[in-house]
Amino acid sequence: MRIEIICTGDEVLTGKITNTNFSYMAQKLEDAGLSVHWGTTVGDDRESLLEAFRLASVRADAVIVNGGLGPTVDDLSQEIAAHAAGVELVLHQAWLEKMESFFTRRMRTMPPNNVKQAMLPATAEMIDNPIGTACGFAMDIGKARFFFTPGVPRELRRMLEEQVIPRILARAGAPASIHLKRFHSYGLGESHVDQLLAGVEALDPDGGVKLGFRAHYPQLETKLTVRGTDMDDVHRKLAPVVAEVKARLGNFIMAEDDQTLEGVVLAALAAESATLTVVETFTGGQIAARIAHLPGAETVFRHGSVSRHLDRLFGVALPPGLGEDTTEAVARAAREQTGASHALAVLIELDEGADRMDLGGTIWIGIATANRMDVRRSRILAGREWIRLGAVELALDCLRRFLQGLPVTERIDFEKT
Amino acid sequence: MRIEIICTGDEVLTGKITNTNFSYMAQKLEDAGLSVHWGTTVGDDRESLLEAFRLASVRADAVIVNGGLGPTVDDLSQEIAAHAAGVELVLHQAWLEKMESFFTRRMRTMPPNNVKQAMLPATAEMIDNPIGTACGFAMDIGKARFFFTPGVPRELRRMLEEQVIPRILARAGAPASIHLKRFHSYGLGESHVDQLLAGVEALDPDGGVKLGFRAHYPQLETKLTVRGTDMDDVHRKLAPVVAEVKARLGNFIMAEDDQTLEGVVLAALAAESATLTVVETFTGGQIAARIAHLPGAETVFRHGSVSRHLDRLFGVALPPGLGEDTTEAVARAAREQTGASHALAVLIELDEGADRMDLGGTIWIGIATANRMDVRRSRILAGREWIRLGAVELALDCLRRFLQGLPVTERIDFEKT
Repeated sequence: MRIEIICTGDEVLTGKITNTNFSYMAQKLEDAGLSVHWGTTVGDDRESLLEAFRLASVRADAVIVNGGLGPTVDDLSQEIAAHAAGVELVLHQAWLEKMESFFTRRMRTMPPNNVKQAMLPATAEMIDNPIGTACGFAMDIGKARFFFTPGVPRELRRMLEEQVIPRILARAGAPASIHLKRFHSYGLGESHVDQLLAGVEALDPDGGVKLGFRAHYPQLETKLTVRGTDMDDVHRKLAPVVAEVKARLGNFIMAEDDQTLEGVVLAALAAESATLTVVETFTGGQIAARIAHLPGAETVFRHGSVSRHLDRLFGVALPPGLGEDTTEAVARAAREQTGASHALAVLIELDEGADRMDLGGTIWIGIATANRMDVRRSRILAGREWIRLGAVELALDCLRRFLQGLPVTERIDFEKT
Repeated sequence: MRIEIICTGDEVLTGKITNTNFSYMAQKLEDAGLSVHWGTTVGDDRESLLEAFRLASVRADAVIVNGGLGPTVDDLSQEIAAHAAGVELVLHQAWLEKMESFFTRRMRTMPPNNVKQAMLPATAEMIDNPIGTACGFAMDIGKARFFFTPGVPRELRRMLEEQVIPRILARAGAPASIHLKRFHSYGLGESHVDQLLAGVEALDPDGGVKLGFRAHYPQLETKLTVRGTDMDDVHRKLAPVVAEVKARLGNFIMAEDDQTLEGVVLAALAAESATLTVVETFTGGQIAARIAHLPGAETVFRHGSVSRHLDRLFGVALPPGLGEDTTEAVARAAREQTGASHALAVLIELDEGADRMDLGGTIWIGIATANRMDVRRSRILAGREWIRLGAVELALDCLRRFLQGLPVTERIDFEKT
């Protein structure tokens, strides 16, 4: 099954916007056990579009075209698709009516140029877009099946997952059920996790489980793609592999699937009716900014403080210099002065000198409750920006571990001595 | 001058990484008055690479190939380039020596597989890479001049700007000097700015100035690309256009060229030896996070506070509810209690109900010094995420206006009554 993607639009071709639709589509296809073989980017230009469609139509089995379905004159996908297939454009009455009711529900009259969005090539199968006026469509051009999708990311995403990928899988004759299981970790590098997980795929003797990674510093995503005849088959294959991944990565798994680290922390705090105060220095508000705005945080997030120097924290005298005593004193004072059940203090000392790849930072993390105080010292050599990103993640992960009763001082790959 | 870009690598093709190199190259070419006509993405695969090179070699005048210059077996650019041009790979002695000294300076021995990076097609012109072991090269394949560049973004960026674009401009016979002038604004939509600036290009009667935009909510970048025979010519053409853009956009220009809004605010505070305290609610630390970590902020940024409720701010009693009195009281208390010369308070009340596209937020902004207090109320209907992003930008821009002696209450396009 050879799949190609054609991204259209002057905004993408000129770099005005970064083409995140391409990476999104490619990933989603990979997650479904499919692979993209070729990508093309062209502008809103008749000659280029026609040439791109023709080249793909002789090379590929399936082609996803993104963009060019809008109501304006530079949206050309339907016109060029019809031209490439040698068929006429015809009015798709059902979609026209759906668009009209879309506008009516919003107390507006449909502008006449939207009619263009209901003009589809005569041989096209309409693909529903439940959240926009650009319907998709599928049709044959040459030897390939073409799938036309809208450029608006949230419309594309829904159509790709609900309609396009199932159709491609059906054509590929792939097993009916595919499932993607994801684990999010912090503190272990990709090659380290790859080593730790050596052989887990083989726990499904049918070869239905594929292991993959996606690193976005400072987090790593470990992905298991499972193919099976139905969801029962998928779960049967997945269960032993998931158990083994959990056993091997252990405390480093901080979230699964659509969970986020900050969401896990917030839920754990909410579960014990806890409240949180955060004190930051060089992270400058970025730890608070991960949690404070989340739905549900209004009852949990008590207070955040950002100071570059800690001479004035809540009027409490602090020991001089940065070390265990200071970290404990800050966490204790923050908790007591703001009336929170939990305090997280993250104090950072950068090395002297200009920013550089190996500039170091010493990170002190203190977590206090009425009855417990955990302190961790960590050192990262990675330049200002990565020290800050790493410290935010390390601090949130230490708080997760604290709340889950796990050790907060477990060594991570990114730290030095 | 028809230019194509070929991006290579399995990581890009499978969506493991978003292809920011493509948008970067396309933008830089646009800024130099050049345009990309076609983009291709292929994996680390001999057949696809050869096909991509051949197709581009008959269509284009210049082709930039990105990636595939590394030392490992899946880096295939030199091999396939030589194959496509029908020439041999030969050792480039000078680059080999440069690599060896690169390793020697780092107290390491060059691994044998790095020799591969000095094997270039016989007809290639080597292009220096001052910051990595992958040299670039230029050569003819078919009717096109190909430029091979490294996939590491910072190496690509330097090589593109210093070496590749000048070579393409020389081939295009374009004027020797090109300059890009940028203005950053907040509060006016792209179509509004486009209207306001109608006709400014014509102020250079030679047609050497081109106007463009790049919107990245909530900011808008207005770009003037100027082409001239030399830099004097460029500045002569640019001066009247820049003066007119400044006159028309006026107070809305918050930064120019490589400046950032937060950098302008920090510099203005530092210039009057001021210190800053920030109080936030729903923005959750994101305002502090824009300033507190910047070099130089350690003497300016005094304190940041994040609370979802303001019952406990510095122990000062606040008026009930959210309004002008509360905003003033918070800004005043924050300034006095932390000893800063300036306080910025940003208090937000979200409408009731679930998040939705038209969920509203009321934003109160207070800025206090010892002798002055400015308050602004604003209302944005845009959903949780955009309200937060808009409030961060509006607050920083109000502080900029305050520091620059401009009105903080000027109406913006994004707000509703």
